[in-house]
Amino acid sequence: MTLRPLGDYLETLRTTTPLVHCMTNYVAMNSTANLLLATGASPAMLHAPEEVAEFTAISAGLSINIGTISSHWADAMLTATATAQQNAIPWVLDPVAVGATRYRQTLCTQLLAAKPSVIRGNASEILALNGLASQGRGADSTAATDQAVDAAIALAHKHACIVAMTGESDWVTDGTQHYRIRGGHPLMPRVTTLGCGLSALVAGFVAANRDSPLGATTAALACFAIAGERAGSNAQGPGSFQVALLDALYQLNPEDLTTHAQLETIHAA
Amino acid sequence: MTLRPLGDYLETLRTTTPLVHCMTNYVAMNSTANLLLATGASPAMLHAPEEVAEFTAISAGLSINIGTISSHWADAMLTATATAQQNAIPWVLDPVAVGATRYRQTLCTQLLAAKPSVIRGNASEILALNGLASQGRGADSTAATDQAVDAAIALAHKHACIVAMTGESDWVTDGTQHYRIRGGHPLMPRVTTLGCGLSALVAGFVAANRDSPLGATTAALACFAIAGERAGSNAQGPGSFQVALLDALYQLNPEDLTTHAQLETIHAA
Amino acid sequence: MTLRPLGDYLETLRTTTPLVHCMTNYVAMNSTANLLLATGASPAMLHAPEEVAEFTAISAGLSINIGTISSHWADAMLTATATAQQNAIPWVLDPVAVGATRYRQTLCTQLLAAKPSVIRGNASEILALNGLASQGRGADSTAATDQAVDAAIALAHKHACIVAMTGESDWVTDGTQHYRIRGGHPLMPRVTTLGCGLSALVAGFVAANRDSPLGATTAALACFAIAGERAGSNAQGPGSFQVALLDALYQLNPEDLTTHAQLETIHAA
Repeated sequence: MTLRPLGDYLETLRTTTPLVHCMTNYVAMNSTANLLLATGASPAMLHAPEEVAEFTAISAGLSINIGTISSHWADAMLTATATAQQNAIPWVLDPVAVGATRYRQTLCTQLLAAKPSVIRGNASEILALNGLASQGRGADSTAATDQAVDAAIALAHKHACIVAMTGESDWVTDGTQHYRIRGGHPLMPRVTTLGCGLSALVAGFVAANRDSPLGATTAALACFAIAGERAGSNAQGPGSFQVALLDALYQLNPEDLTTHAQLETIHAA
Repeated sequence: MTLRPLGDYLETLRTTTPLVHCMTNYVAMNSTANLLLATGASPAMLHAPEEVAEFTAISAGLSINIGTISSHWADAMLTATATAQQNAIPWVLDPVAVGATRYRQTLCTQLLAAKPSVIRGNASEILALNGLASQGRGADSTAATDQAVDAAIALAHKHACIVAMTGESDWVTDGTQHYRIRGGHPLMPRVTTLGCGLSALVAGFVAANRDSPLGATTAALACFAIAGERAGSNAQGPGSFQVALLDALYQLNPEDLTTHAQLETIHAA
Repeated sequence: MTLRPLGDYLETLRTTTPLVHCMTNYVAMNSTANLLLATGASPAMLHAPEEVAEFTAISAGLSINIGTISSHWADAMLTATATAQQNAIPWVLDPVAVGATRYRQTLCTQLLAAKPSVIRGNASEILALNGLASQGRGADSTAATDQAVDAAIALAHKHACIVAMTGESDWVTDGTQHYRIRGGHPLMPRVTTLGCGLSALVAGFVAANRDSPLGATTAALACFAIAGERAGSNAQGPGSFQVALLDALYQLNPEDLTTHAQLETIHAA
C-alpha cells in the first residue's frame, strides 16, 4: 500500500479540525495546544476520573503522554485508553523517559494493553519500550536513531501499531513498511516539549485520516520537519525559533507539504 | 448609569496593580500570568486547601476557571469562592466547556451559588450555563454569538451578575444595559487559552474598579479587542501573534483605550 | 577564596549539560525548561512518589520551588530533598511567597532541614524566611533589596548555604563573602516566573560546578543579568522580551560572561 500525497492528510486535518483529547504533562500542555491550533486541529485537555471517559468517547483522537505522571493521572489515562479502544478511537502513546524509572515501565506496560494506534518516542524511549537496555535520562535521547530501528520494527510487530521514532532524522514503520523523514533543525532539541506536541499532532492527523494511520503519522512528522527547517532559517535562538515554528505550521499548505517533504522509503534488511 | 471613559478603568488598574488570585487550568496558567503582568495587574496562582482561603482573603480579586478541573481543585475553588463572597471580593467564573460533561455542569451549579461578579464564556458556554441545549465541544464555540445573547441576558438576571460573552464580537450585559465590543483578530482562536486569560484580566479590572463591574468588564474586553487588532496587523501566524499581543497590552495606554474602543450600546428587544 | 572567571562556570555547564530535576510550580514549568535548555542544562520534571527518589538519585542537581504547592507535591519534595542530601546532590530552594501563608512557612521549615545548597528568593521572601516581618504578597517583592541584605547573610550562616537575593540588583552571599550583580531590565518583573527559572538555572550551574557553589550561583545570576539587559535593548514589551531572553541566553558565550558581568565584591559592615 502506497501513501497518498502527504498534503492530502494535512488537507483532511484542516477540513475536519479533529477534536484531540490530550492527556499530557504539565510542561507540554500549553505548547501542545498551540502546536495543534497552529496546524489546524482542536485540542482539549482534561483528566478528571468523573468525566474522562465521557469526553474521550466524543473525541476524534486521544494523545497520552506520561511526562509528569502521577497515580491519579495514570488511572485516568487507563480509563481514557480503554474508552478509546472500545470506541475504536485512534490514540497515540508518548512513553516519555520510560527507561528512567520502574514506575514508567510498569505504567507503559499497562497502557500498551489498550493497543495504541501509534507510539511516538525518541530512540532511547523506543529501545526501552522494546525491553532493550537503554541509557535514557529524562527526555533526551542518548541512543542514535539508527541503532534503534530494529527495536522500532519489533515494537510495531509486537503491538500491531505504527511506531514513529524521532531524532536527527525520523523513522516511521508499521513493522512492514518503513519511511525516513529528514528535515528539522538543530534548535529543536533546545525547545522543550516539541516531541510531546508532535505526539499530539500525530493523534490529530490519525484521527482525521483513520483509513491510513501510517500515512497520517508520516505526514505529521513531515509537517514538523519542514516547519522546523523553515523556522530555523531565521531564528536567533530557541526563543525566536519557537515563535517561528508556530507561524510556519500555520503557514504550511498541503501542496508545500507534498512537494517539500524529504521522504524516503526504507528497505530494511 | 453610563460608563466612565474606558481608559479610566485601565488607569485605575495600572495605579493599584490589584493582586488577582487565579485558580485556572494548567494549560492557561503561564499565559494568564503573562497577560495580567503585561496589562498591569499582579497575578498569583495557588490552590492548596491548607492556604487557599487565607490567600483569597488578602487578594483584590479572584478568577476561577474549570478547564482542567479535578476534585481537589473543585473543593479548593468552592472554598475560595465562599471566601470571596464572605469578604465581598469580586470574582469571575470561566465555565470552560461546561456543555461537554455532566461533571462540569454540576460543578458550575455549585460555584454559581457563591455569586460570581462576572461570568465570562463563549456562546456555547453561555448557552449551556443557562440550561439551553448546546453543541459545545472543548473550548471552541460552535454557536453564533448573536443566538446566545438572550441566554446571556437571562443568566445575568438569574445570578445578578455581569455576563461577558466573547466571540467574533463581544457582548457585555448586566441584564439591563448591554454593550457590544468589536475588534480582535481571526488569529485569536488559534492561540490557546486567550479566553481564559481574558477572564482573569476581567477579575483584575473589576477588582481595581469595584464601583463599576459593568464598566470594568467592558474595559477589559476592549483592551483585548484593541490589542488583538494591533497584534494581528503584523503577525505572521499564531506564534508571532501571541508575542505581539503581550507587547500591545503593555503598550496600550488609557487614552488609546478610550479613543479606539469600538463600543456600541445595544438596545435589546 | 576568589571566584574563577565567571565564564568558566558557564563553560562547565555547557560541557557537562547537567540533568536538573525540577520540581516547580505549574506556571513556571514550561518557561523553566526552556530557560535551562537555552543556556545549556538538561531539565527534567517529575514528582510521583513512586519514582521521585529514584530519579533525584540519578540527577546532577535538584531545584525545588513551592509556587503552586499542595500536599502531594510537598511530600514528594521532602522525599527528593532527603534523597539529594543523602547522595550529596546539590539542591536549590525557591521559597515562593513564603511570607504569604502559614502553610508555606511550615513547609519551608521542613525543607530547610534537608540543607539546601542555595536559597534563591526576592527580598520579601528572604526576609520572611529569616523570620522577619515581611509584606510579601504573591511573588512580587515589596521590600527593597538593600534592607534585606542582613537577612540574607543571617540565613546563609544559619543554614550553611549560599543565599541569592534577586531584585533591581542581585546579591549573593555565603555568609562571609558577598557579591552584588547589576544588570537586567525593567521588563523582567513583567514576565512571569523568570525568578523561578533562575532558581533552576542556579541548580544547573551548581551541579556542574560542585567545587564552587558560590561562584556557580554568581555566574548563573550574571548570565541572567546580561541576557536580560540584551533582551531588553530591543524589546517592544514583555512578549518580545521573553523571546529575546531565551535567544540571548543561548547566544551568550563564556568570554562574554566574564567580560560583561557587572560584579562587585561587597564589604559588609
